[in-house]
Amino acid sequence: MAHDFAPRPDAVPGCALCEQAGGVVLWQDDAWRVIRAEDADFPAFYRVVAQHHMAEFSALLAPERARCMDIVCAIERVLIEQLRPAKINLAALGNMVPHLHWHVIARFDWDSHFPQAVWGPRQREVDGGAPARLGMPLHDLDACVVEALVRRD
Amino acid sequence: MAHDFAPRPDAVPGCALCEQAGGVVLWQDDAWRVIRAEDADFPAFYRVVAQHHMAEFSALLAPERARCMDIVCAIERVLIEQLRPAKINLAALGNMVPHLHWHVIARFDWDSHFPQAVWGPRQREVDGGAPARLGMPLHDLDACVVEALVRRD
Repeated sequence: MAHDFAPRPDAVPGCALCEQAGGVVLWQDDAWRVIRAEDADFPAFYRVVAQHHMAEFSALLAPERARCMDIVCAIERVLIEQLRPAKINLAALGNMVPHLHWHVIARFDWDSHFPQAVWGPRQREVDGGAPARLGMPLHDLDACVVEALVRRD
Repeated sequence: MAHDFAPRPDAVPGCALCEQAGGVVLWQDDAWRVIRAEDADFPAFYRVVAQHHMAEFSALLAPERARCMDIVCAIERVLIEQLRPAKINLAALGNMVPHLHWHVIARFDWDSHFPQAVWGPRQREVDGGAPARLGMPLHDLDACVVEALVRRD
């Protein structure tokens, strides 16, 4: 299911998200790729990454923003339907890698940081590890994400 | 310039953002209000808050999402033009207050947490305080935000 990643001709040298996929590539087109972030604390953590280098969301035209948020919401809906999380977290920060990418993260009241942000202080250890607590193999969750993205193409 | 806030008839009891403005209300219509967050570490910190209670962004219809992100981007563009920040941070988390609100935060390489998230560990103290470092009175920045929002109405 994972896609290959190759840097684009217009990649910005030294930009981590121009030079590397940033995770497991599940779906992509010319404008966006969807990756799973491979975070042990937050297994249901996807990113919508701009294929072209730009720093800020407002650099996009309105239809491009709409398409981006359609993709974000398609992932959000899969996470809600499949996992019944306590909350979805959406964020485009980019302080360390200023290449536009949206975090889409399913949060649970049992997770290591809840109700803090994933960038905040750890609140607890999770017995058995977070992936085992999801109640669904990640491969199956990935498949649901891909199916939702392909369906809306 | 600040607007009054009154809870809506459909306010959810106990929801902080149904019952309180959450900051200085700069602009509002039936669907959204824009507030400044009054955060001493991050003075250029605005929020776009849903007037009606809902938890998740994907609960909105596509035109409602587009309008929300138009407002977010109007604020983002003002912050970029007026302050030349290192980065804009956008986020809809809601782990503590699950009432849809978007954070729009101008970040600077000198700020107390950069390049960490504002929810992450403090990196430094800011001599003289962050508001004094902005280079612009907050009242003037608020006025630019309001002007941008009114112009696009």
